[in-house]
Amino acid sequence: MSGAGKPRENDPARPGEVAVPLPEATDAGLRFIGRIRTPFKTRSDCPRNILQSTAEGRVELDPNYALGLQGIEGCSHIWLLYWMHEARRDLLVQVPKHVDSPRGTFALRSPVRPNPIAMAAVKLLAVEGTVLRVAHIDCLDGTPLLDIKPYFASIDSIPEASRP
Amino acid sequence: MSGAGKPRENDPARPGEVAVPLPEATDAGLRFIGRIRTPFKTRSDCPRNILQSTAEGRVELDPNYALGLQGIEGCSHIWLLYWMHEARRDLLVQVPKHVDSPRGTFALRSPVRPNPIAMAAVKLLAVEGTVLRVAHIDCLDGTPLLDIKPYFASIDSIPEASRP
Repeated sequence: MSGAGKPRENDPARPGEVAVPLPEATDAGLRFIGRIRTPFKTRSDCPRNILQSTAEGRVELDPNYALGLQGIEGCSHIWLLYWMHEARRDLLVQVPKHVDSPRGTFALRSPVRPNPIAMAAVKLLAVEGTVLRVAHIDCLDGTPLLDIKPYFASIDSIPEASRP
Repeated sequence: MSGAGKPRENDPARPGEVAVPLPEATDAGLRFIGRIRTPFKTRSDCPRNILQSTAEGRVELDPNYALGLQGIEGCSHIWLLYWMHEARRDLLVQVPKHVDSPRGTFALRSPVRPNPIAMAAVKLLAVEGTVLRVAHIDCLDGTPLLDIKPYFASIDSIPEASRP
């Protein structure tokens, strides 16, 4: 599991938070396919969410996967899927700073979750070889990249979606 | 890697498709947190995409993760992230049936990709214990579940996004 980062299972949970033991075994394996470069060197540097980020990011795809970019330059927006390698995985009830009461992990977009996969829809500014320049990214510098997908407004855009 | 399914690295590629060798090692491990039940028992039963599916699906969360659902009932729509356990991972250029020319994997929503994580924004119909009933799901019955996230229109909905 080289490169899996430092999950922080030992950080104290805040009052109201609940951790559960996770199975030792894993069921499938991921391969990191690149890294996301941002101006944010520590977790406290990161904007609280992507709407508050004005940063441009560089998605550096491993050259082994270069052929997979064919045709992507025609997309105005793309999804980035990435691995929140510093997040603990065992908290199921969390008390984020901006929320007034404990909430289940699956009702939050927190990086802390059993499988810490994050996703962000970003504007594609330019494709320069195996580097994609993107707008408004809020993750930690060096975050491992898992996937790039085209954004399909027909299935991904639900402007009327509501939440508490 | 129990439960990782049967990746089909040996299926013949179509003319114009390109496979690359993948690193043997993986960099991080996933834990399946449930299964998605649908009416689709084989890949040929699956609708071509979620817009063509009228099926209701049942997301069966492993009871170990039940606490994580707290607060989700207030969401009109959720993201499901799931593992395309039957997809091969080594094709970087593909010729899908509905596309006229070869295209890079990262410009497609095909299940075939280095990390076969799929995501779908679905309407949440009901929460019944650890089962979520959702509308318009198009994946294979028994697909392993990786994550559930609330849909945030503020960051996820980009109606003006365009693609070739």
